[in-house]
Parts: sequence; structure tokens; C-alpha cells
Amino acid sequence: MIVEVINTGTELLLGNTVNTHIAFLGQELFPLGLRIARQVTVPDGEDIRTALTESLTRADIILVTGGLGPTTDDITREITAELFNLSLLEDESVVKSIEERFARRHLQMTERNRRQAQVPQGATVLVNPFGTAPGLYLQKRDPDSQRTSHVFLLPGPPRELRPMFKDTVAPILKNLIPDGPNIDSRRWLVIGLGESKVEAIVGEDLLAIAGMELGYCARPGAVEVRTIGTQEMLAKAEAIMMAKLSDFMAGEGGAPLEELIVHHLSALKKTVATAESCTGGSLANKITNIPGASEVFLAGFVTYSNESKTRTLEVPAELIATHGAVSAEVAGAMARGALKVTGADYALATTGIAGPGGGTPEKPVGTVFIALAARDGETEVTQQNFPTDRGTFKDLTVQTALDMLRKQLSH
Amino acid sequence: MIVEVINTGTELLLGNTVNTHIAFLGQELFPLGLRIARQVTVPDGEDIRTALTESLTRADIILVTGGLGPTTDDITREITAELFNLSLLEDESVVKSIEERFARRHLQMTERNRRQAQVPQGATVLVNPFGTAPGLYLQKRDPDSQRTSHVFLLPGPPRELRPMFKDTVAPILKNLIPDGPNIDSRRWLVIGLGESKVEAIVGEDLLAIAGMELGYCARPGAVEVRTIGTQEMLAKAEAIMMAKLSDFMAGEGGAPLEELIVHHLSALKKTVATAESCTGGSLANKITNIPGASEVFLAGFVTYSNESKTRTLEVPAELIATHGAVSAEVAGAMARGALKVTGADYALATTGIAGPGGGTPEKPVGTVFIALAARDGETEVTQQNFPTDRGTFKDLTVQTALDMLRKQLSH
Repeated sequence: MIVEVINTGTELLLGNTVNTHIAFLGQELFPLGLRIARQVTVPDGEDIRTALTESLTRADIILVTGGLGPTTDDITREITAELFNLSLLEDESVVKSIEERFARRHLQMTERNRRQAQVPQGATVLVNPFGTAPGLYLQKRDPDSQRTSHVFLLPGPPRELRPMFKDTVAPILKNLIPDGPNIDSRRWLVIGLGESKVEAIVGEDLLAIAGMELGYCARPGAVEVRTIGTQEMLAKAEAIMMAKLSDFMAGEGGAPLEELIVHHLSALKKTVATAESCTGGSLANKITNIPGASEVFLAGFVTYSNESKTRTLEVPAELIATHGAVSAEVAGAMARGALKVTGADYALATTGIAGPGGGTPEKPVGTVFIALAARDGETEVTQQNFPTDRGTFKDLTVQTALDMLRKQLSH
Repeated sequence: MIVEVINTGTELLLGNTVNTHIAFLGQELFPLGLRIARQVTVPDGEDIRTALTESLTRADIILVTGGLGPTTDDITREITAELFNLSLLEDESVVKSIEERFARRHLQMTERNRRQAQVPQGATVLVNPFGTAPGLYLQKRDPDSQRTSHVFLLPGPPRELRPMFKDTVAPILKNLIPDGPNIDSRRWLVIGLGESKVEAIVGEDLLAIAGMELGYCARPGAVEVRTIGTQEMLAKAEAIMMAKLSDFMAGEGGAPLEELIVHHLSALKKTVATAESCTGGSLANKITNIPGASEVFLAGFVTYSNESKTRTLEVPAELIATHGAVSAEVAGAMARGALKVTGADYALATTGIAGPGGGTPEKPVGTVFIALAARDGETEVTQQNFPTDRGTFKDLTVQTALDMLRKQLSH
């Protein structure tokens, strides 16, 4: 079964919006035994016609996102009906559900929304509990090849598309797919070695597992090794990875560091707190993205100003005056302060210069100190330099901090 | 000039990695007068051949990302050389820069990295200060159409691609492009009205501006109106938007709410603090993403546990016992506590049930209370219900909190 994804949306190509549909759909399709063979983004409007026509010659399953809204630039519904030679009919139940949606919000339905109730003849309506645009499911049989293409038109906003895919599209796809061999994926995050070194160590052995798919991906501060195959193949790969790289392994299953840490802390019944300056809450945010974080994460402090470092984390004002807020001494004092104030077992602290402003010759933009304090141990401070944009700087600092805690926990 | 982007990377299609290249390149190309006409993602390996062959028939400028690494699945360089009928030659200066990079990190260069120094004959090497894979720039003239395609091969990791694009690709593109009419873009974020309602109010007038491109995009809790055209067209659009929708306008230029707030606070010389439970630091993170946030953001608290709410924010334990941690009373007390502890002018607080666990019949998953306290004013608390995934729940809560502060500031 060949799957293609077509995303429509000028905002995606202008860069006003990051295309998160590809990753979401890729993740959801894999457990169904499906992979995206090709993904295309086209602007709003007529270009969907070419993209859909091309996909129909290649794919069994086509997922189209966007262009179902009420405004004039939303014409996915109309163009698909034209391509399939189907007339558009107003669907009473869709009109009713849109009316009800507006009534619940004490708003009046406009005539423009009525267009969203137009359904190509014979198409299946996919209910949208989170918006006015219903999804549509159409089938097209090619008279020459006898192949049937299954086309799904889905709304563009992620909070409408995601539940619709999970609740209505996935069950339909499950019915279409013959039971194949049980293919699974396993990923490992290797820290502290370059991509070429990782391949030099395990590449030959992994390639020798016949039929298994193998990939490497460079991540900030890490290399991800990805394998796809039967359980038997993956068990062999696991044995090779553990035998040769266990010292450098962040974790199995490609789980993000924060997930490993939350699970690890939870198993050890230990707790953590954070004291952030330059990362501005993104360290706490990463940890609290993991369900169950509330069991292990006691509290976080974003102490941006010097005064708040002193007031909240009891960092001595003299220490800041002597060494500067961006220093190993202050990072350590922040972490110890967070330990003391919260009663946590571990505390992570960050202080640095995210930029674009604020750099000096001694401490240029990108300089950062990261500290890990343990209730029953010493305080470890590391200095790094990440001269990059503000967002990447935050990400790299957070990854480094999380990795310090991971190493501490696995001792 | 038609621009196409080809992203290679199995991890993008499996969903292990979000494709951020599209948005980055779109944003960078626009000020150069260029737009992405089409973007395609293909898996690692052979599929790049078909994608590149197709793009060569249509596009003047082709930006290819990924597949330049040292591992066996990285073959963009080899396939492009084959398609262009060019032999690959080892480039001494590239070998040297890779060796130096390894030496600086006290690592040894592997034989696999030597492949990265292979350059198609006649191609221009684009220096990569942040990784081992250099970029490559090739030109191909089609003998039939006499059209020249400019092909750029760029590394996959964003922190290598981004500086390379800005520092070396953008200047080459600037030279290729004839000076066109001065086209710009303007965006407005409209809050509190649906997409169809917004179009009903301003759509006809905006469409009447001949030659201007117009688009609408539904965002969480907002509608974005996007216009592209000459300065004259955009000035007309601005006049229409301000005349008809100024009461609902979050801001001009499509600036995110947190940017508006940081600028607004900065202009008023006011400060803000945050007290977060369910948003776990993402509110502070959003605000501190904006350069200059340190001037207006005093401190943030992620008080996940009840104890930390009491200890850090002085929320009375009885209040939590009586009303529950997820309540209007506790949200208000958290905000007032943050005001008091930090001395800020405003404080925002969030407490809710992000899920997936923790819901009750009275307070289901998605319930959230958001409070805004002002030093010289009352405390405002709003209750919302966002029954969605954990990430979207956090996003919507943060947007709502930011919008409360925006409204307060614009009074």
C-alpha cells in the first residue's frame, strides 16, 4: 500500500506555520503498517489539482490536509469533486452540525460556512467535533489499472485534524490493510560519538542483518540509530547495540531524554527541581511535557533577573557581583538554592547568554553554565558554548542539562 | 524564478523529526523576492533521484536538504553527480577542514568522513562551520529549453543548514534575482471571531484591491489574515483592517502575542511574572523566546506540587484543601502570590488538568483556570475547557493567558 500526503497551505510555504502534519501522520501510520512514501506541500488554490492528479497515478492511499475552510482560498473540496467527476450536494446533517456548533458559541452561522456542508456525491463525511469543516473520504477506481485509490480530505488546523485522524481515519485504514508481517521499529540515541564513528563501530554488523532497514540521523549532541524490521531482526540489532555501544547509550526506543528521566526518577522515587535563567522555562516545559511528570517534578524557577536569583534561590548578591550572573559559581548556587527551597533530590540550573544581545569579549553570546546539584552529593557544573540562534541555544542547553541528570541517574 | 524544495530523510516521513526546513527556507526566501512553489519530502536513498529529475523540469532554483552525511544512507551527493553526469573528485581543502574539525575535538577522522570531501566536478563548495558535510552548488543548463537550474545541496541538521543558507546561499541567490517590484507581506491576528465572520466583514473590500494576494488561516483561538502585494496595496489593506476590525486585533505584522506583550510592557516600563502549574514552564518559555524579554520578565515559577504552591507562592494550604488545586481561587492566589514575591506589575497564573490522567467528573481533563493579577488592580480569573492532547492543551492555555494580558495592557 503506497501512501502519499499532500499538504495545502500557502502559510506552510511562506514559513508562517511549521508543517507538523507530516510528523503526526508518519507517527500514526507506522503502527498501522503504513509508511509515507512521499509528501508534497502546495500553496492554497489551484495547485492541489496537479498534486492530486500526480498522486492518483502512484498511491493507494492519499491524505490531503487543508483547504476545507469557509474562505475563498479554500477549494480542496471543489477541486477534488471536479477531478472525480462528482457533483457537490449540500448535506443536511452537516448543515445541522455546523449550525449547532455556532449556536453553542452564541454566534450566527454565515452563508460562507454553508459551503462547508457541500459533499461530493457518494463521499463519506468524517465528523469534526473541533471545527466547522467536516473531513471527506472518497474512493476512485482506475479503469485501466483496476487499482482503487482511497482519498481522505482532512482539515488543516492540527487540533481538528489529529482527533479526526485517530477517531475516524485510522479505523478505516485498518480495514483496508491486509495483515502483513509484524514490522516494528527500534531507535537508540547515542551520545558523545560522531555519526561516522557510530557507523564505524556497529554499521557492518547491523547491515549484516538481512532484510532490516537501517538509518542514522544526526541530532543536537547525539546520533540516532534507527532500525525497522521483524521482532527477530530488532532483537539482533539490540544485542549488537548493547554489546558495542552501551556506554554511550542515552536510551532505547528513541525516547527523548526527558521521558527517560521522568521514568527513571519515578522508578527510583526521586524528585527534581529546575532553576533556569537563559533557558527561560524550556527545561521545565520539556520535563512537564511528559505525562506523569507531576510525580517527580516538584517545582521550577525561572529567575531571569539577578534580584529573583537572590530572592527566590538565595544566591548571595555578592556572588553575582563578584563572578557575574553568567558564571559557574552562580549556576552552582542556583542549583543548590533550588534543592534547598524545594526539598528535591536533584536540581538542574542554567545561566548563559542566549543572544542576540548581551555578549562580551570574555563571555560571548552562546556561553552557558549548567549545574546539577544532588541532595546527597556534589554539585557538578559544566561550561558550554553554543553560538547559534536563540531557539537552538535553548534546545542545546536543555539537552545538555537533561543528559547530565541522565548520567547521574544511571550511575 | 520558480523555487522548489526537496527534503530527504526517512526520519521526516516516519515522524521522528518535524520538518522545520520548509518554514525556515520559506521565511528566508520571501525577503529575497522568492517563494517556494512546491516542497517534497522523500525517504533517504534512491527516491531523491526521481524527485530531483522532476524538479529539474520545472524549477529555476532547487534547494535539496539532507543526505550529505557520512553514513551509507546518505547518497544525495552521489546521485546528483550521476544525474548531472559529473565525476566526483576528492577536494583537498574539504579533507583538510574535516580533519581540522576532528582535531579540534580530539577525535580521529574516519574513512567514512572522507566521502564527504567528494565534490562533483565544477561544483562550488559551501563551507559548513558547524558540521563535517559541506554544501554544494551546481548549475545545469537544459539544452532544449536553454533554462539554467541552480541546485543547492544543503546539510540536514538545522543548526548546520541555517547558518549555511544565511551566510552563503542567500548571497548567491541575491545575485541571480533581477530586481522586481517591491513586494511585501502584512499579517494581522484577529481574536474572538471565526474565520467565516472575519471574511464576511473584510473579505469583499480586501478582494477589491486589485493584484493583492489574500489568505486566511485559522490559528488556535485566532484567525490570521495575510496579504501580499506592493506597499500601496498593503496600506489600503491596513486601512480596511483597522477601520473594520481594530477591536479584535491582536496585532499587526502577524507578530505572536508574546512579542506584542514584551514590546508593550517594555514601552510602558512594566514587568511581568508567571506562576504555572499545568503549563509547566511553557508560558515563561514563550515570553523568554523573545529577545529583550529580560527587561520585562522578572521571574517565573513552575509550582507543580501543592507544597510548592504554598511554599513558593504563599497560596494558603487551606485554600487548596477547600477548593482543590485546580480552581479559580487557587489560580487567583497563585497570581497574587507571584506579584507579591517578585514585585512585578502583572502576574499570570495557570492551573488545570492537562491529562491524559487526573480528570474527575466535575473537573474533566482539559479544565483550566487562568488568572491575571495587576499590582494596582483586581485579579481576573477565567475558566476554559480544552479537551485535547497535552501539547495542544498547554498551547491553548498559554495563548489564552497571553491574550488576557494583551487586553489588560491595551486598556
